[in-house]
Amino acid sequence: MHRSIATVSLSGTLRQKLEAIAAAGFDGFELFENDFIQFNGSAATLGAIARDLGLSVDLYQPFRDFEAMPELQFRRSLERAERKFDLMQAMGARLMLCCSNTSPMAVDDPARAAAQLHALAERAAQRGLRVGFEALAWGRCTSRYGQAWDIVRRADHPNLGLILDSFHTLSLKDDPAGIADIPGDKIFFLQMADAPLMAMDVLQWARHHRSFPGQGDFDVVTFLEKTLQAGYTGPLSLEIFNDVFRETPNRRTAVDAMRSLLYLESQVRERLDDAAPRAVTLFSPPPLPDLSGISFIEFAVDEAAAASLGALLQQLGFRRVGQHRSKAVVLYRQGDVHLIVNAQPDSFARERFDAHGASVCALGLRTDDPEAAAERAVAMRSQPHHSPVGPGEVRVPAIVAPGGNLVHFVASALGRDGLYAADFVLDDDGPGASDAGLQAIDHVALGLDIDQLDTWVLFSRAVLGLEPGESLELADPFGLIRSRGVANADRSVRLVLNVSLSQRTRTARTLRRSGGGAVHHIALRCDDIFESVAHLRANGVAFVPISGNYHDDLATRIDLDGGLIERMRAAGVLFDRSPAGDYLHIYTESFENGLFFEVVQRVDDYDAYGAINAPARMASQAQS
Amino acid sequence: MHRSIATVSLSGTLRQKLEAIAAAGFDGFELFENDFIQFNGSAATLGAIARDLGLSVDLYQPFRDFEAMPELQFRRSLERAERKFDLMQAMGARLMLCCSNTSPMAVDDPARAAAQLHALAERAAQRGLRVGFEALAWGRCTSRYGQAWDIVRRADHPNLGLILDSFHTLSLKDDPAGIADIPGDKIFFLQMADAPLMAMDVLQWARHHRSFPGQGDFDVVTFLEKTLQAGYTGPLSLEIFNDVFRETPNRRTAVDAMRSLLYLESQVRERLDDAAPRAVTLFSPPPLPDLSGISFIEFAVDEAAAASLGALLQQLGFRRVGQHRSKAVVLYRQGDVHLIVNAQPDSFARERFDAHGASVCALGLRTDDPEAAAERAVAMRSQPHHSPVGPGEVRVPAIVAPGGNLVHFVASALGRDGLYAADFVLDDDGPGASDAGLQAIDHVALGLDIDQLDTWVLFSRAVLGLEPGESLELADPFGLIRSRGVANADRSVRLVLNVSLSQRTRTARTLRRSGGGAVHHIALRCDDIFESVAHLRANGVAFVPISGNYHDDLATRIDLDGGLIERMRAAGVLFDRSPAGDYLHIYTESFENGLFFEVVQRVDDYDAYGAINAPARMASQAQS
Repeated sequence: MHRSIATVSLSGTLRQKLEAIAAAGFDGFELFENDFIQFNGSAATLGAIARDLGLSVDLYQPFRDFEAMPELQFRRSLERAERKFDLMQAMGARLMLCCSNTSPMAVDDPARAAAQLHALAERAAQRGLRVGFEALAWGRCTSRYGQAWDIVRRADHPNLGLILDSFHTLSLKDDPAGIADIPGDKIFFLQMADAPLMAMDVLQWARHHRSFPGQGDFDVVTFLEKTLQAGYTGPLSLEIFNDVFRETPNRRTAVDAMRSLLYLESQVRERLDDAAPRAVTLFSPPPLPDLSGISFIEFAVDEAAAASLGALLQQLGFRRVGQHRSKAVVLYRQGDVHLIVNAQPDSFARERFDAHGASVCALGLRTDDPEAAAERAVAMRSQPHHSPVGPGEVRVPAIVAPGGNLVHFVASALGRDGLYAADFVLDDDGPGASDAGLQAIDHVALGLDIDQLDTWVLFSRAVLGLEPGESLELADPFGLIRSRGVANADRSVRLVLNVSLSQRTRTARTLRRSGGGAVHHIALRCDDIFESVAHLRANGVAFVPISGNYHDDLATRIDLDGGLIERMRAAGVLFDRSPAGDYLHIYTESFENGLFFEVVQRVDDYDAYGAINAPARMASQAQS
Repeated sequence: MHRSIATVSLSGTLRQKLEAIAAAGFDGFELFENDFIQFNGSAATLGAIARDLGLSVDLYQPFRDFEAMPELQFRRSLERAERKFDLMQAMGARLMLCCSNTSPMAVDDPARAAAQLHALAERAAQRGLRVGFEALAWGRCTSRYGQAWDIVRRADHPNLGLILDSFHTLSLKDDPAGIADIPGDKIFFLQMADAPLMAMDVLQWARHHRSFPGQGDFDVVTFLEKTLQAGYTGPLSLEIFNDVFRETPNRRTAVDAMRSLLYLESQVRERLDDAAPRAVTLFSPPPLPDLSGISFIEFAVDEAAAASLGALLQQLGFRRVGQHRSKAVVLYRQGDVHLIVNAQPDSFARERFDAHGASVCALGLRTDDPEAAAERAVAMRSQPHHSPVGPGEVRVPAIVAPGGNLVHFVASALGRDGLYAADFVLDDDGPGASDAGLQAIDHVALGLDIDQLDTWVLFSRAVLGLEPGESLELADPFGLIRSRGVANADRSVRLVLNVSLSQRTRTARTLRRSGGGAVHHIALRCDDIFESVAHLRANGVAFVPISGNYHDDLATRIDLDGGLIERMRAAGVLFDRSPAGDYLHIYTESFENGLFFEVVQRVDDYDAYGAINAPARMASQAQS
C-alpha cells in the first residue's frame, strides 16, 4: 500500500518532520495546515522539498466548518476554499480533507450539506482537485461514517468522496462492518489511529491520546479489513494527536509509525483469504516468533563490577559454571536461569557499560527458528546486530531493541548446554553457594522514559509477539509509576514495562543514570518461597524490609490462614491474590545502578506481577 | 478553625509528610491508610511522632465497602473494623472515615446500610471512637451527601455522623444548599477540595486532578459557608489527590495548602454577617490590595549584561533617565514604563544574577496601601523581604514570590517620580533613542515548572487579588505549553503563567537555565503598533519573522480590510479578534537567557493575550 502520515503526528519544524518521514520510508504525507501556516517558505517551496525527499503531498487538512451552513457563511467558505486550492496546486496536493462541521451555526440538514459539498467539489474539479468528507466524532450533526457517506452519496459528484478515520468510528463504538458496503472508489482516503480505552470526553481523548495502530486497545485490524473489503486502494495513513509524540525525537516516532503500518498490514493479510484477488499488496513479513522462554540475561560490567555482581549471584545460589574460552565472560547458572557476566574490553557490552554503568545489555529469547525471528524483526524495522562469531562458536542472530540493548534469538534445539558448550569451558560444579531453588526467569522489568512506553508496546507486539496486559498506576512516595506487563501466550516470556510519570521517583533517578531505558529488576521463580528465602538469607542476601503494618492489613483484606501470614511476616514476603491464583514475592536490596532481584512463587494460574505491593516496596526503599 | 490535611496530599515518606505538615502550621492531619501500611513503625510510634510534632491524628481513612452488604461480608467487615480500631487507639485517632460502598455486592437498601452503620458505630462507641460516613461521587448506591445524611439519620447513633467532601458534591453539580439544614453536630468532619472543570470520568478526575481551594474552578466558598451555617465546628481539612503534588517537594505543597485554607476562611468570613455569633473563628487577614499597575520591572545583571541590556532598551525607545546615587543601578523610562537595571554587587539582584544569569528579579506593583498589602501577603504565608533602606530613601515593602523573585508594593501616592527622586539622579533628557510610543507594561509572562502553576494561581489570587482566565494549551514544535492569564479587575496588572508540559520546548530549556521559574517575556503596550514597529525597526530592533503563510491564512479566517492585512504582513504583526475587540502584536528576538519583549496594541475591550498566535512565534523561533 501507499503509506502516509500526517505531519501533526511528529515533533519538530515542518522541514524536520518531512525529513524524518522520508527517512522512515513513507511514500507521502498529510499536510496539517498549522504546520504550513508556520512554515517559513511558500507552497511551491514546500512542494519542491517534498519532491526532493521523494514524498507525495497526499492530503491537505483540515478544512473546517464548511457544510450545512447558512448561505452567507457558505459563500465565504467557498472563497476560503479557493485560497486553499491555490496553495494545494502550488505544492502539488490533490486532495483536501473537509471534516464535519462543529459550528453552532450548522443546521441539521443532510440535503443542504450535500448541496454545499457538491458546490465545493465542483470548484475543486475545475482545478483537477478532489475533496474528501470526514465525520468527526464530535461533529455537530454528522459524527458517524454512515452519516457522512449518506451526504457524499446524495452530493453525487465524482470529485467528492469519503474519508475514514478509525478513531472517529471506534471511539464512538460505532460498528465498522458497514464500511465494506461502500463502493471502494468513493473512499478517497483512510486514516488509521489506535487509542487506549479512556473514560473521557471524546474531543480531549482525540486531541491528546491517540496512538499508532498496535499501541492501543482499538480493533484497528477489523477496521482496515472492512475498508479493503470495500475495494479501497488509496493510501494507508496515520493521523495521531498525542502529547508524548509532540515531544519525542521525530526519527524514533517515524520508525514506530512505519512499524505500526507494517504490523497492521501483516495482521490484515493473515485474515484475508489468500485466494481472493486483492487490488492492494499488503506487507508480508516472516511470521511472529514462537518464543519458549528467556534463555539468558547478559550483564555489561567492568572487572570490579564483575567481581561484585559475581559475589551477589553466588549469594543468590548461582554457580559459576562457565568461563569463556577467549573472553572475559563468565556464565552463572541456577535451575534453568542462565546469567552471563560480560567484562570483555572492546565489546558491545563494554560500550554499554561505559555509557550506562553496570547494567543488563542483552536478553536471549528461546525460539524454534532464530533466523526467521531476526528476519521478522528486521522486516519490522528493527536494526540487526552482527556480533563477531569465532571459529566453532554458535551464531546467535540478534537485533537492537528500543533503547539500545540487544535481543538474541536462541535456537530451542540447542538445549541447555548447546549454546554454551562451544564457547565456554563448562563446569557444573564450579564455585558457588548451594542452590537456593530459583528455577526460571519469571519476568524482566524495564524502567523506561515516558516516551518509550508506546514504542515498547508496539515492539513487543510486532517483533516479539508479546501481548500487553492491563495498564496500572502505582504510587511511589515521590510520584506515580505506570506499569504494564507484556507476555507471550504460554507466559514463558514476560516483560514488565515501567514508566515514571514523575522526575523524582527512584525509578526516574535510576533511569537518568541508565540513559533512559534499562532493566529495572529481574524476577526469579521458585517453588517454595519460604525455603528459598531462608536459604538466601542464610547466604547473606539482604531483602527490602516490609512494614509489619503491611501484614496486619493483609490479614484484614484477604481470608488467609493465620500461620501463613505469620510465615510471610517473618520472611518479609508479600502476597497478592487474583481469582486465578496467588502470588508470593520478595525484593532484594539494590546493588549497582539501582538494579535488584525479585523472588517469586506463582500458585495456580496467577497471571500478573503483584503490582498492588509495589508501593510497599517503593516506600520501603525510600525510607531506607 | 482547627486546620488539617490528609497525608495523601503530599509527596514523601510518612515521616517527611508529617514534618512538612507541622512546619506549615497545621493543627492535625488525616492519616491515609496506605501511608500507614507502608510506614516502618507501629501505630504507637506514629502517635508519638505526631505528638512530638504537635499534630493531632484527626481522621483514619478510608474504610471501604462496608455498608449495605450481605450478612457474611458485613460480619467480616466488622472484624476488619476492629483491627483498624486497634490501630486508631494505639495512635490516638478518634474518628474513622467510612466511605460509601463501591462493591458490586452492595445492595440499594438504605435501611440495611443504616443498620450496619449503627452496628459499626456501636463497636466504635465501646472504645470511645466515632465513625463518619461519606458519600463518594462514584458510590454504587450512595453518591450524594443527601443520601448519606438520610442513612446517618436513620442509623441514629451518637457515634455516627456525616463526613462532607466538597469534591464529591461539586463534581456532580449537586447543590450544597441543603447542607445548611443538617444539624452541625452531626457533621463530624469536613474535607475541602477544589478542581479544574474537566470533561472526564469522575473517578479519574478525583484521583488525579483535585487541587487546593483557590486553585480550581469550584465554588468552594459557598460550600464552606453552608457547612458553617449548619453549625459545624470541627476541623477544616484538605484531601487532595493530585498527580503533580505527588512529586512536588512537600514543604512547598504544605505552604500552598495552608495558604488555601487561610484564603478560603477569609473569603467565607467576608460573606458571613459579622454581627451573627459564630462558633468558629475564621482567619481574618488585611484586605486584598487594590492594585493599579506595574510600577517597575527590575533586572538582575552584571556589568556586561547591564551594557547589552541598556543598549537594547535604548533601541526599544527607552531613555536612561536615572543613575542611582550610591549603587550600580540605572533607571530607564518610556511612557509609563519604568525598567530598573541592577548591577550592584552584594545585592539581592546580584544573588539572582549569580544563580540564574541576566533575568528579571523583581516587580513593583502600585497600590494605595503598600504596608497593608505586604501584611496581607505575610499573613497568607509569603515571606517578607527587607531591603536595606538608606537615609532619605523611600521604604518599599517587599515579599518573596514563588520561585524567589521579589514583589514590591509601591505607594500610588508617590506618583511618577516620587519613588525615584530620592534615590536617583534623574534626567528626563538622558541618553536614548527617540520615544517609540511604548506607553505601559501590558503584561509580564512567566515560564514556570509544571509544579509551580497551581502555586502561582493561588498566590495570584490570595496574595495579589488577581483572578485567573481561561487555561489554554499551545503547540510548540517540541511539545505543548499550558498558558493561563491572571489579572486584576481593572486589568492594570496582568501576568501570564506559562508551563511547558514537555522537557524539549524552548520554554522548558529557558526554564532549566533560569532554575525553574522566570520572566519569559515582557509585553509593552502602544497606541499604534505600525508606527511603533517602524520606529523600532529603524532603531535596529530585530523581530521574530512571521511566515507569509500566516497572513494568507489570516485573510481566509477573519474578515479584514486587505490593506490592513498587507500592513501587518509588511510589519510582521500578528492579529487576534474576540467579540470584545482586536489584538495586534509582535515579538522581538530574544536577548540574554531567552528573554524577549512583545509589543502590543489592544483595540476596544480585547481581554486576552493572542495565544492563538503563540505557536507561530514558537515555530519561527525553532526555525531560526
